[in-house]
Amino acid sequence: MERYVIGVDFGTLSARAVLANAENGRVLAQSVSTYAHGVMDRSLPDGTPLEANWALQSPQDYLDALYTAVPAVLRQTGVLPEAVIGISLDFTSCTLLPVDASLQPLCFEDRFRSRPHAWVKLWKHHGAQKQADRLNAAARARQEPILDWFGGKINAEMAIPKLMQMLQEDPALLDAAAYVLEAGDWLCSILTGTVVRSACFAGFKSGWQKEAGYPGEAFLEEAMPGLAAALEKLRAETISPVGSRAGGLTAEQAEKLGLLPGTSVGVPVIDAHAGVPGAGIRESGDMLLILGTSSCDLILNRRQIAVPGVFGVAADGILPGLVCYEAGQSCVGDLFDWFIHNWVPGAYEAKAKEEGVSIHTYLTQKASALAPGESGLVALDWWNGSRSILNDAALPGLIAGMTLKTKPEEIYRALIEATAFGQRVILESMEHSGVQTGRIIACGGIAQKNPMLMQIYADVLKRPIFVSSSDQAPALGSAMFAAAAAGKANGGYDTIFDAIGAMQPDFAFCYEPNENNAEVYDRLYGIYRTLHDTFGTADSLLKKLRQI
Amino acid sequence: MERYVIGVDFGTLSARAVLANAENGRVLAQSVSTYAHGVMDRSLPDGTPLEANWALQSPQDYLDALYTAVPAVLRQTGVLPEAVIGISLDFTSCTLLPVDASLQPLCFEDRFRSRPHAWVKLWKHHGAQKQADRLNAAARARQEPILDWFGGKINAEMAIPKLMQMLQEDPALLDAAAYVLEAGDWLCSILTGTVVRSACFAGFKSGWQKEAGYPGEAFLEEAMPGLAAALEKLRAETISPVGSRAGGLTAEQAEKLGLLPGTSVGVPVIDAHAGVPGAGIRESGDMLLILGTSSCDLILNRRQIAVPGVFGVAADGILPGLVCYEAGQSCVGDLFDWFIHNWVPGAYEAKAKEEGVSIHTYLTQKASALAPGESGLVALDWWNGSRSILNDAALPGLIAGMTLKTKPEEIYRALIEATAFGQRVILESMEHSGVQTGRIIACGGIAQKNPMLMQIYADVLKRPIFVSSSDQAPALGSAMFAAAAAGKANGGYDTIFDAIGAMQPDFAFCYEPNENNAEVYDRLYGIYRTLHDTFGTADSLLKKLRQI
Repeated sequence: MERYVIGVDFGTLSARAVLANAENGRVLAQSVSTYAHGVMDRSLPDGTPLEANWALQSPQDYLDALYTAVPAVLRQTGVLPEAVIGISLDFTSCTLLPVDASLQPLCFEDRFRSRPHAWVKLWKHHGAQKQADRLNAAARARQEPILDWFGGKINAEMAIPKLMQMLQEDPALLDAAAYVLEAGDWLCSILTGTVVRSACFAGFKSGWQKEAGYPGEAFLEEAMPGLAAALEKLRAETISPVGSRAGGLTAEQAEKLGLLPGTSVGVPVIDAHAGVPGAGIRESGDMLLILGTSSCDLILNRRQIAVPGVFGVAADGILPGLVCYEAGQSCVGDLFDWFIHNWVPGAYEAKAKEEGVSIHTYLTQKASALAPGESGLVALDWWNGSRSILNDAALPGLIAGMTLKTKPEEIYRALIEATAFGQRVILESMEHSGVQTGRIIACGGIAQKNPMLMQIYADVLKRPIFVSSSDQAPALGSAMFAAAAAGKANGGYDTIFDAIGAMQPDFAFCYEPNENNAEVYDRLYGIYRTLHDTFGTADSLLKKLRQI
Repeated sequence: MERYVIGVDFGTLSARAVLANAENGRVLAQSVSTYAHGVMDRSLPDGTPLEANWALQSPQDYLDALYTAVPAVLRQTGVLPEAVIGISLDFTSCTLLPVDASLQPLCFEDRFRSRPHAWVKLWKHHGAQKQADRLNAAARARQEPILDWFGGKINAEMAIPKLMQMLQEDPALLDAAAYVLEAGDWLCSILTGTVVRSACFAGFKSGWQKEAGYPGEAFLEEAMPGLAAALEKLRAETISPVGSRAGGLTAEQAEKLGLLPGTSVGVPVIDAHAGVPGAGIRESGDMLLILGTSSCDLILNRRQIAVPGVFGVAADGILPGLVCYEAGQSCVGDLFDWFIHNWVPGAYEAKAKEEGVSIHTYLTQKASALAPGESGLVALDWWNGSRSILNDAALPGLIAGMTLKTKPEEIYRALIEATAFGQRVILESMEHSGVQTGRIIACGGIAQKNPMLMQIYADVLKRPIFVSSSDQAPALGSAMFAAAAAGKANGGYDTIFDAIGAMQPDFAFCYEPNENNAEVYDRLYGIYRTLHDTFGTADSLLKKLRQI
């Protein structure tokens, strides 16, 4: 009998389930289910208004999506429940919610329905900046090691600042919570009936480290009185390693999903991070480059080293025995979209329409005809600040080199080149710190749809870049975790490495660097790097500009 | 009997004649005549192709324009020839042509018609860059004082590089020429029947200085063998001071113009420079700011001092007894036009059309609603290089401070602000060198039509800016020179200063600086100035960029 696994990828607006053959990873069916409430950033479902920078979600949406998408892939394929040996999921993070002792979200209770803090704080909830500032000030004063693992600064999107915001703004509600959980952990706990905490969420988002555990009590209390006690809602005695089994499906959940009770459930991981196995990455030095509105780099290495500008790092965070570094740029696809909406002349729009192509395609055609360096332009890609390596959201962008002959397609290409240079800065920072990178594997919409951009990245990085053939790498990665959690005896694998080896997708393309282009880009990068270092300092001219 | 004067302003594409009342300067009529051949930058009239960077004109066009526009203003007003006490003209410069001993242009002869060097080299002819480089190298090696009077570098648009190009590329043609004249001098010579050389052209464009005369023979021969002899075609024993009488109309020319023989003809001046009296400027410290596609600053002072970045300086160059400094920015209106053609989204174009306004007007409406500093943007306005104070055509532009929220109108305003900051750099350079500036009087299309821009200039310069009510300041200035040349005994004036005092136009507006805005702009200017000094050096990053 063929064996199957199900991976479910919970993104920001929808969840995607895939059903894959456990032997070879072939995806037989997929189903996407959109969240009814989407992102709540203005008001709660009952109309209670939210402050600016808030971003909440409803946990009911996650349940509805799960109970819709999983039965859908079973129905589409006719695969029988007994042939499904495991399920696993990945989730956005840090996406945090308070629940009671029976794992019921507090926002489900009438008495808490109008309390914003009762709902899920989505990863991009930015209401906890003040709390993050307090935490960083205390950490810097005490030279806490946690700073090393967050590139020198704890981001307001992380779990502890979000917890601090609850503690400060609605302590009574926090008191009523038995646990404050990552949404991915919570959903896995619902499936298995036991409280699960994944090493992936804990390591990358909660400040937990495999050796050192959670931050110490004295530091937490110094940052905010009561925080050490509050952290008890977040922390656990046992952190579940990735690639292992979280438990078996409860009878109730099995029925809702159309699976058998006791079906193996894997330990959940962060959505982007599930793309690591999903793209076939499993060796020290391998790097996954996810190119979307922003970019996310996940780099595997044997050793844990403090690297400037890294966004997070966790030993065993994705694959057991390997340290995973997370870095990235805060503005990639978003930058190109900004350009399309704010810079493309009407004549170009008309021409694209005439040719029946999108404006992105039209600009790409024109920009592809340019040689590297031809336009004499260079840009700093900081339209949304610099995440890695500067970790400074207040830095703005810059374009240099314009003349009266400069055309829009030259700017467009310069912006693409700028993001590639930003990527090179990250790689160089890694290598300077002793984290060697080997294969680069790209996934995400941009990687599959924009050959010009990918060639520029290969030329700038002077490295071949492989593009995964899978257009759902995270969901497939979760399916691999499901297969590993099920174990070899049940038709799965002993380890996640074995699962990856058997189930990994092919590479669709490989972009090889062009030597001539690389030589020109080396020189352009020298200028980018000088601008980067000149304007990227804390008292940078560009920041002064924004203060005026 | 009322007395009248005629001023004729020869621009790049057309000539404009005005007929003004000699007593009060009131303009009764004006007439514009366009040159049939315009600018020849691809081929001669017989089809002979031209090299890139060439820009020629036909002297016949000047004659045709003169013989059309002057009779037209007489016809329009019914003013009798005997009531016209004088005529004077201004001309683009350095605009140079070779003529024979009878003042006939060599290009009128069949044997020279196909020789590019026989035609008029227009001011913006850029074919003599190599020759300018040789001249500068020799001047620097010998530390020639000429460098001081051209801001440290002799521009390829100047007379001696253009003469060197003729000497090098068509020496036989140069041999055939009796004189190589500025077109303005030539036309005045035609009118009076005697060879005239104005101190204005000689001082600003030929390297002649009132005290020192022309550059020395040894220097010229070192720059190019034969150049000292060639200069004889350009130089004259007598240089005519501005504001004086060049001669009287010949009978032949009087008939063509519809004036009386012997009518006084004034010494010609450069077109922009004629705007100085035309805008009522006559005192040390006064500054004329001409805002068009580029900008031209003309500043009067009692003393001649070497000022870094000045484009030209001539004692008695415009008004007797005063030194006139010329500076300017190479890209003002051109920069805004570049923006309109390369950066304005289709949605903005559609909205402007819907509102029935030009896109400039639409953007100005939106940009006017912004407060100084609000956008967090600053630009270096070097899209066409930096003329003053850096005198470097190879420098490109820069914009800093973009975020994903940056809108096109914010960029538009930042570009306007950048040109204002560039203007402030010029003023500060003047003042640091000891050239104090007093009143600033603006003229040109932008000054009259763009109140937002003018207010920004007043706020950035922290000085009131007067706008001349005359929309033809150069032609009116020439009419004043005509009145001064005619003399008081003939119904004119003893001096150009008296003519200006009586005939000057009113100011249409005065833009007073807003203190709050000025304070914000002081801080923005500090950032502009740092960027300017950082990127404006000879080995600037931005220049390296263009070399790639």
